[in-house]
Amino acid sequence: MAVETRTGRTVKHHDNTYNVIGTTPIRHDGVEKVTGEALYGSDINLPGQFHGKVLRSPHAHARILSIDTSRAEALDGVHAVITGQDIPEPADKIISGGEGDGNLLKYKTENILARAKTHYHGHPVAAVAAISPHIAGQAVKLIDVTYEVLPAVLEVREAMAPDAPIIIEDLLTELDDQVISETPSNIAEKMVYETGDVDQGFEESDLIVDREFSFGVVHQGYIETHNATAHWLKDGNIHVWCSSQGAFSIRSELANILDHPITKIHVTPMEIGGGFGGKTTSYLEPLAALLSRKSGRPVKMNMDRDEVLKATGPTPGGYVRVKLGVTNAGIVKAGYAELAFDAGGFPGSVVGAGCKCVFAPYNMPNAKVVGYDVVVNKPKTHAYRAPGATHAEFASETVVDEICRELGLDPVEFRLQNSAKEGDWQLDEPPYARIGHIECVEAARDSDHWQTPLEQVPGKLRGRGIASGFWFNVGLTSSAIARLNSDGSVTLLEGSTDIGGTRTSVAMQFAETLGISVDDVFPIVADTDSVGQTDVTGGSRVTFATGIAAHDAANDMKQQIIAGLADLWEMSEDAITHRDGTFLTDGKSLTVREAALLLTDEEIFPVGRATVTPERVGGAFTTHIADVEVDGETGKVEILRYTAVQDAGVAIYPPYVEGQIQGGVVQGIGWALNEDYVYDDKGLLRNSSLLDYRMPTALDVPNIETIIVEVPNPGHPYGVRGVGEVPIVPPPAAVANAIHDATGLRLRDLPMSPARVQAALTSQNGDQT
Amino acid sequence: MAVETRTGRTVKHHDNTYNVIGTTPIRHDGVEKVTGEALYGSDINLPGQFHGKVLRSPHAHARILSIDTSRAEALDGVHAVITGQDIPEPADKIISGGEGDGNLLKYKTENILARAKTHYHGHPVAAVAAISPHIAGQAVKLIDVTYEVLPAVLEVREAMAPDAPIIIEDLLTELDDQVISETPSNIAEKMVYETGDVDQGFEESDLIVDREFSFGVVHQGYIETHNATAHWLKDGNIHVWCSSQGAFSIRSELANILDHPITKIHVTPMEIGGGFGGKTTSYLEPLAALLSRKSGRPVKMNMDRDEVLKATGPTPGGYVRVKLGVTNAGIVKAGYAELAFDAGGFPGSVVGAGCKCVFAPYNMPNAKVVGYDVVVNKPKTHAYRAPGATHAEFASETVVDEICRELGLDPVEFRLQNSAKEGDWQLDEPPYARIGHIECVEAARDSDHWQTPLEQVPGKLRGRGIASGFWFNVGLTSSAIARLNSDGSVTLLEGSTDIGGTRTSVAMQFAETLGISVDDVFPIVADTDSVGQTDVTGGSRVTFATGIAAHDAANDMKQQIIAGLADLWEMSEDAITHRDGTFLTDGKSLTVREAALLLTDEEIFPVGRATVTPERVGGAFTTHIADVEVDGETGKVEILRYTAVQDAGVAIYPPYVEGQIQGGVVQGIGWALNEDYVYDDKGLLRNSSLLDYRMPTALDVPNIETIIVEVPNPGHPYGVRGVGEVPIVPPPAAVANAIHDATGLRLRDLPMSPARVQAALTSQNGDQT
Repeated sequence: MAVETRTGRTVKHHDNTYNVIGTTPIRHDGVEKVTGEALYGSDINLPGQFHGKVLRSPHAHARILSIDTSRAEALDGVHAVITGQDIPEPADKIISGGEGDGNLLKYKTENILARAKTHYHGHPVAAVAAISPHIAGQAVKLIDVTYEVLPAVLEVREAMAPDAPIIIEDLLTELDDQVISETPSNIAEKMVYETGDVDQGFEESDLIVDREFSFGVVHQGYIETHNATAHWLKDGNIHVWCSSQGAFSIRSELANILDHPITKIHVTPMEIGGGFGGKTTSYLEPLAALLSRKSGRPVKMNMDRDEVLKATGPTPGGYVRVKLGVTNAGIVKAGYAELAFDAGGFPGSVVGAGCKCVFAPYNMPNAKVVGYDVVVNKPKTHAYRAPGATHAEFASETVVDEICRELGLDPVEFRLQNSAKEGDWQLDEPPYARIGHIECVEAARDSDHWQTPLEQVPGKLRGRGIASGFWFNVGLTSSAIARLNSDGSVTLLEGSTDIGGTRTSVAMQFAETLGISVDDVFPIVADTDSVGQTDVTGGSRVTFATGIAAHDAANDMKQQIIAGLADLWEMSEDAITHRDGTFLTDGKSLTVREAALLLTDEEIFPVGRATVTPERVGGAFTTHIADVEVDGETGKVEILRYTAVQDAGVAIYPPYVEGQIQGGVVQGIGWALNEDYVYDDKGLLRNSSLLDYRMPTALDVPNIETIIVEVPNPGHPYGVRGVGEVPIVPPPAAVANAIHDATGLRLRDLPMSPARVQAALTSQNGDQT
Repeated sequence: MAVETRTGRTVKHHDNTYNVIGTTPIRHDGVEKVTGEALYGSDINLPGQFHGKVLRSPHAHARILSIDTSRAEALDGVHAVITGQDIPEPADKIISGGEGDGNLLKYKTENILARAKTHYHGHPVAAVAAISPHIAGQAVKLIDVTYEVLPAVLEVREAMAPDAPIIIEDLLTELDDQVISETPSNIAEKMVYETGDVDQGFEESDLIVDREFSFGVVHQGYIETHNATAHWLKDGNIHVWCSSQGAFSIRSELANILDHPITKIHVTPMEIGGGFGGKTTSYLEPLAALLSRKSGRPVKMNMDRDEVLKATGPTPGGYVRVKLGVTNAGIVKAGYAELAFDAGGFPGSVVGAGCKCVFAPYNMPNAKVVGYDVVVNKPKTHAYRAPGATHAEFASETVVDEICRELGLDPVEFRLQNSAKEGDWQLDEPPYARIGHIECVEAARDSDHWQTPLEQVPGKLRGRGIASGFWFNVGLTSSAIARLNSDGSVTLLEGSTDIGGTRTSVAMQFAETLGISVDDVFPIVADTDSVGQTDVTGGSRVTFATGIAAHDAANDMKQQIIAGLADLWEMSEDAITHRDGTFLTDGKSLTVREAALLLTDEEIFPVGRATVTPERVGGAFTTHIADVEVDGETGKVEILRYTAVQDAGVAIYPPYVEGQIQGGVVQGIGWALNEDYVYDDKGLLRNSSLLDYRMPTALDVPNIETIIVEVPNPGHPYGVRGVGEVPIVPPPAAVANAIHDATGLRLRDLPMSPARVQAALTSQNGDQT
């Protein structure tokens, strides 16, 4: 039942062949999703449930002087009202905040529901449970809050200034867990990464380019808004159904936020309509739980789009400076970077990841990177696809382009010459294992796109850009448990929310290992009681790490089948071997199906299990080529052609890899050209709808051409590398480099919106390198 | 948090001591159940669901000449109508029909939905799915069925007569899978069990008593009616939520009935409001599934009480003859019995189990038992608590009482002298392992009840009776899977529906084995995907067999903790021992909780698993004493005092054992005195409500005194025997023997209703032995 959907091609750097891996079976959840039968959070309805709504701050920065909930409580049909006082005030405790950031628990709880101050426009101040969403909405309006409005600060460099309004009044700056400031500021953390001798490196350089960049706030833009239904039972068990990238993370957060035993919290993951890093943390879940406890009933909550944009975690805006030194021959000698990222209303941005990615594609012996995590009056930022890397590498990859132009070097040759490779330095991480940057650049160079000169049309501003990107990928913990059914099929439980087709990509690895058809594997995303510890679907980790768990569980099942057969046949387990789904011994040969029939009859029920925390993760590299045409009048940039080349290690399901690449590129193009949070001078968000917050549609981009490079990852039994995040990294740089090629303009502020491009085009002061 | 609730006492025949076993913790599901938060089948509501209703036969026996569904289909809001033609007609295939009976699949499907004939009043003929239960109910009335009404036959001996109307027109009688009849009859099966030389045994007897007994139909009387919600997805996956004693059995039945791959059927067990054997099979589930497929939506169905009584599986009515031969010294020499049980409208009663139980409490070297499975125009019968044993032992235990009277023997001494014991003969089963009948009789003899003479009041008819009972108990397959949480608590998944507190009794065995508090074990009854194969909650098997699975899973977890610690501490696993919940090695000692914290930090997540099919099950014996007062005017029998002595092996949670004993006794008293299906001369059921079908209430019975005897079962690591079923066995005989003691009347027809007792009292022909 394979369906050919591929548009791209694959460049292999290995000779492995597989039965299942690399094929394109129909995805297990496909029919349910296209028919609308799949169950999402909004489909949950419990007997006697109430509906919750949130009152949100109308101010960007304000002190809460008083909250009077009496009018709301008196409204017919209202059964519970909560404020920040209803969340246990925690001791300072570091908890895991999901993808790539660690936070203090007290800040986490204050972000869920404000205590003394509101830190951004849309910050939750109170919540209500009532018999209908309508009445809950009415009740929210009857809550009387008296605010003292305070001056807001929205931009990182302004927030870092000594005279800036201080948002968290006792916040001291930390450096490696040491407090380094004597007085409070908005800088929550300063981080310094250094290797080699940067000053010496710049001394040895013939050319030094030093540039500054800025970024607006960009949201992940998942289509399904946040939702949560919670039932806090009288015996303290709490059941939660929600849309999240990780049921176990939600469980763990709830245990911390509610100060409740983790074993009494039961989270059932529903299908998810997109996440991209933004659904790795809780917003509504603790509110629904507290409202349920107070009202004694299950409570269901849904955000609308306005709430999602105002008060969930977009990726940071911020500032990056990159300074690179090279020899005239084009050898990189030194790099220096400063990154200051929005944390949002509470500490904890993804700046650390940005710091470590900024120079990652290059072998750079002398480097120093300084990062600042800065509190501003905007929503607490969160992970978004390769978090931090896009900002950082937008800066470094446009500086590399500028250097190539300046020295007259071919940007492909420059990258091949300076590329990071196996064994090279990696900032604050172990040296690179086998990686595929060089292979990506070569495949880009050899591509039809790069080999076909861009057709120039008189009167049109057209140009081509190239850029590389890197993202770590992560490992974390994944579990799988598999049961052999009497008909030889396998029920495979995993804990990873399936966002990008991972039920199938994980099931394929199980099938490959046990030697059965993937159509005989029935993957199920299970709740937090039914499967072992599994961290978030994030960091491009599921096909990699949950795939390893499936592989190991298949081997465990294989061994149990052998043990069962050995028992039945009264022989040693060593006498039975397994090859391509067949169990062989002297004169006997059984398929998995035959073995299942036999063992079930004898009441032997093999169960394969695995929980893994892989340490050798294997970073992902990619190289993108963009052709653009700039409208000289309006400044609008059109993408004419786009090719993304990416090392997938080994592509389990090539069209899914292509889909991840295409999706990441389109989001990167949106970030590059359009998407931005627009705040007014009071710090109020003015474009909190998908009409005004403009994401690309299918009409805005060409078909994204893809080339999958396969340089197997030595940290995975089948060579898999995570593929989901890195494709968002190069688009802003590739597009900016193409705009420069078309216009001679260097744009260093995202988004490169028509207004900005037009302003640059018409300005006498356009920076025309 | 132990709460002392015990009213009874325990007589131990062992020296074992335990930390958890034998204590009385608060049950894990207690708060949810008393607060109404626990979710039952009726609490399930799926988006867009339809509601189903069933059209049932108004005749006891009829040929379906035509069904016209067009008027129903035309009704606004009706989305699907199905008839027997919508169920795939199966090839003859034997399937497991739940507790103790095997059936042909074709009969099973015809019982779900009639094809050519209706076999009993209430037999499903068609079903409808509509937007509301009300419209579905209206639509059912618009289905036009033309019947040819046929003569009905309701009583087994009439049904066995050569000129009886034949219900299944091609039914031939089987004996040991050999057809032994040449022409069709209503006798589906004849079974013969024989040991020793019966004729010789009767030759050696000084006294032979030969009596006949009859039984009405009795329903299990669970409070929660049947319900099922099914969603047949477009990709062929079928999700089912239902009230059943075994989700895996329902899954397996659906796979057979619908001819559908078992792996695509997903059954979620809801809480259950009683079953007693009556919820081990499917009624609504296949209908809901077929209506869902046809309508494209989830379909929810609920029976009302009338439907439950008319068309689910009560225990058989029937006929039993018992002939016993003894010497004048009171030594049993031979036994002969004939049992003919209602199968109901389709073959498959529990007569086989009755045959094997009839002489089970006695060491009887010469015995022959003949059983008949007889089709009659009543609902297909099913299992009910110790299925078949109550009928059989009512007969044999009153004959024993008659023999003791006749020979002037003490009924206690008679039983001690003739009791079955370890190594003795067991009909069609392996010889007895260590059993506790003698210990039960001794404890009954030594009880306050037996030692206190019944107070006689002038003018009152008061008497005392004693009777023993036996039930096999069963083993079957159970699974458990346990996860160690970071706080040292354990999430324990099991597949056994919890009817009688088995979440806790199973968790206690896990806790005992791992050496932790039972409050740190969180038992969950999981769905058919989340836990391994687990057969029905029935046959008194859960605390026994699922308990073994929990014990083995705890040992598996223990071994994994040791392996994890050995890995961390870089030592051999052999160097670490476990005692009372502590892991010990040279100079180091860790509790489970400390080990959990340590291992979780190191990303080691122990998972214990087990699937077991215990073969040495261990039968259960019990001895009951009843004091009654018979109203000489009305014939009403009042129970003055009742004591039940039962061998529990080892009682895991003594009050639960007492609860099972008390519940079984009360059901047995209802069966003895009141409960009965009342049919009119057309074979229509006339008392299908709980007002007219009269079960005992708390006002009808005294407190049932209990004595737990502990003779450990060698087939279980902690000595557990199943306790749930055997207490229903002796009450009819104990009460009948007490009535005889009070009145001199031998009543041999159940129920011994006021009308029957009164008739016997006033009749000149009363059988006054």
